[in-house]
Amino acid sequence: MAIPIRFEMSTLLHVVEVGGIVAFALSGFIEARMKKMDAVGVFTVAFITAFGGGTLRDLLLDRRPLFWVEHQEYPILVFVLALGATPFLRHLRSNATEKAIIYADALGLGLFSVGGASLALESEMPLFVCAMMGVITGIFGGVLRDVICNEIPLVFRRGQLYATCSFMGCWAYLALNMMKASETMAVVTGILITFILRMLAIRFDWKLPG
Amino acid sequence: MAIPIRFEMSTLLHVVEVGGIVAFALSGFIEARMKKMDAVGVFTVAFITAFGGGTLRDLLLDRRPLFWVEHQEYPILVFVLALGATPFLRHLRSNATEKAIIYADALGLGLFSVGGASLALESEMPLFVCAMMGVITGIFGGVLRDVICNEIPLVFRRGQLYATCSFMGCWAYLALNMMKASETMAVVTGILITFILRMLAIRFDWKLPG
Amino acid sequence: MAIPIRFEMSTLLHVVEVGGIVAFALSGFIEARMKKMDAVGVFTVAFITAFGGGTLRDLLLDRRPLFWVEHQEYPILVFVLALGATPFLRHLRSNATEKAIIYADALGLGLFSVGGASLALESEMPLFVCAMMGVITGIFGGVLRDVICNEIPLVFRRGQLYATCSFMGCWAYLALNMMKASETMAVVTGILITFILRMLAIRFDWKLPG
Repeated sequence: MAIPIRFEMSTLLHVVEVGGIVAFALSGFIEARMKKMDAVGVFTVAFITAFGGGTLRDLLLDRRPLFWVEHQEYPILVFVLALGATPFLRHLRSNATEKAIIYADALGLGLFSVGGASLALESEMPLFVCAMMGVITGIFGGVLRDVICNEIPLVFRRGQLYATCSFMGCWAYLALNMMKASETMAVVTGILITFILRMLAIRFDWKLPG
Repeated sequence: MAIPIRFEMSTLLHVVEVGGIVAFALSGFIEARMKKMDAVGVFTVAFITAFGGGTLRDLLLDRRPLFWVEHQEYPILVFVLALGATPFLRHLRSNATEKAIIYADALGLGLFSVGGASLALESEMPLFVCAMMGVITGIFGGVLRDVICNEIPLVFRRGQLYATCSFMGCWAYLALNMMKASETMAVVTGILITFILRMLAIRFDWKLPG
Repeated sequence: MAIPIRFEMSTLLHVVEVGGIVAFALSGFIEARMKKMDAVGVFTVAFITAFGGGTLRDLLLDRRPLFWVEHQEYPILVFVLALGATPFLRHLRSNATEKAIIYADALGLGLFSVGGASLALESEMPLFVCAMMGVITGIFGGVLRDVICNEIPLVFRRGQLYATCSFMGCWAYLALNMMKASETMAVVTGILITFILRMLAIRFDWKLPG
């Protein structure tokens, strides 16, 4: 889902992107394993979790080539992770790893969301649609993961704010963009707002009203 | 899902369109609430119910911009309805409102189906495919709603005729079109046939054989 | 899902294609019936099983017209089969028919997979993506069938090798293609490898490790 944002992507953003993909893929591994899927299922669910949101966005915006087609190394990375998932997953029990995944997921959510909004803006979508495309990029991988695994999507159940953080981050990016801030500034602010809101929501158990 | 039909859309058709979107979105609200989703889920499910069929048709026909991208006011309408859904839903208990929803849904089904068939014809699809695109536009919002809500799609279970009414309305439209009737005449007839069949199916409990 | 492969399609391949479509559609009929769907559900699920994989591939590759739009006779075939499904299904109990379906399904899997890989190659996708597109074409009809029927996709559960056979067949095709073998040779080899692996997996109960 992450995306060639309009400025030269810094090494830092690239690290965030890989981290986000791994975090998203891991959540796919874990859910597929819980459903007792075999390696084919584990790979497919991880792949859909990592790239489903961006793929849906590209279908809606009619953008080609798709992100993961241009970057063949990303699906191969998920493939290799899936082949080695079982021993890998054993190490996930540690507290430190769990924390790392939460951070990587929140950063990935920010990057993918803001990146999606940025691409929608580039395609000259109206503002509200740009924000929606950002949220779709950020959350629909997880939605498709849950649909395939025969669960009601986690992100729609009354949990700690997730899509809302993505929505706020996208609007922050769009607002700065309207105010003629530099693209770098707008992207970084949008990602940080998503990330910080998500961390606060986890820390203080913020939820939407029922 | 509704669509810029080929003739200047009259005020009446526009009212039917908004009524159909609201009726479809409401069925999304109700199912999302029954699944105890939060506001994010309620909005997304309502949005998918209202616009999913038309979006799938546009993806299959490769039409852009999507209906709801061109008419940003429609997703915003669903968003505002979702924010205010809870108090709003309380009023739905009344018999009069329930009846209004049934009428609006049947009219929406007619408009979206015939509109979908009309767009497919414009894209020079073969006739049977035009009828299928009409039915897809009319019913797939509800199908996707049920898939996301982890239910077998209502429209596939043995209930009162629904997709069949849409199919008949589309063929009526296509037949009149082949017979060189005016577009307005063909569209209005197609919508009315869908609507009347649906009303009769509810009234007399018409079902397909098992 | 099957596809206008790059060489003049021989009568034999055409027979395999129709056989594959019928086998895929039948698995849709059977699952829809088990879920007590009516004729609308039976047709839709059969249609999605037969054409869902190829449609998803065409959306991802941005190819139009879709396979079943170009060949209107195929959806009509599924429609006619769905109308006559109930008496038809009764005859499926015989051992001979069950065996015929298993053969037709395995051949269809081979043809659709290799055809998908071939189309992806034509669209100049990277190699790993070509193999993925082949597998998507071969298996996603069944995945969508199970999602609509509210089941965890069969192909992801720990059963006899299925997607793996498709993956191997696609790589055999791609390898021969890289080695400048004739397209006919590469396609036929890819289909045969998928078919033989699948037959061996059923015969010897080959599964992926858990």
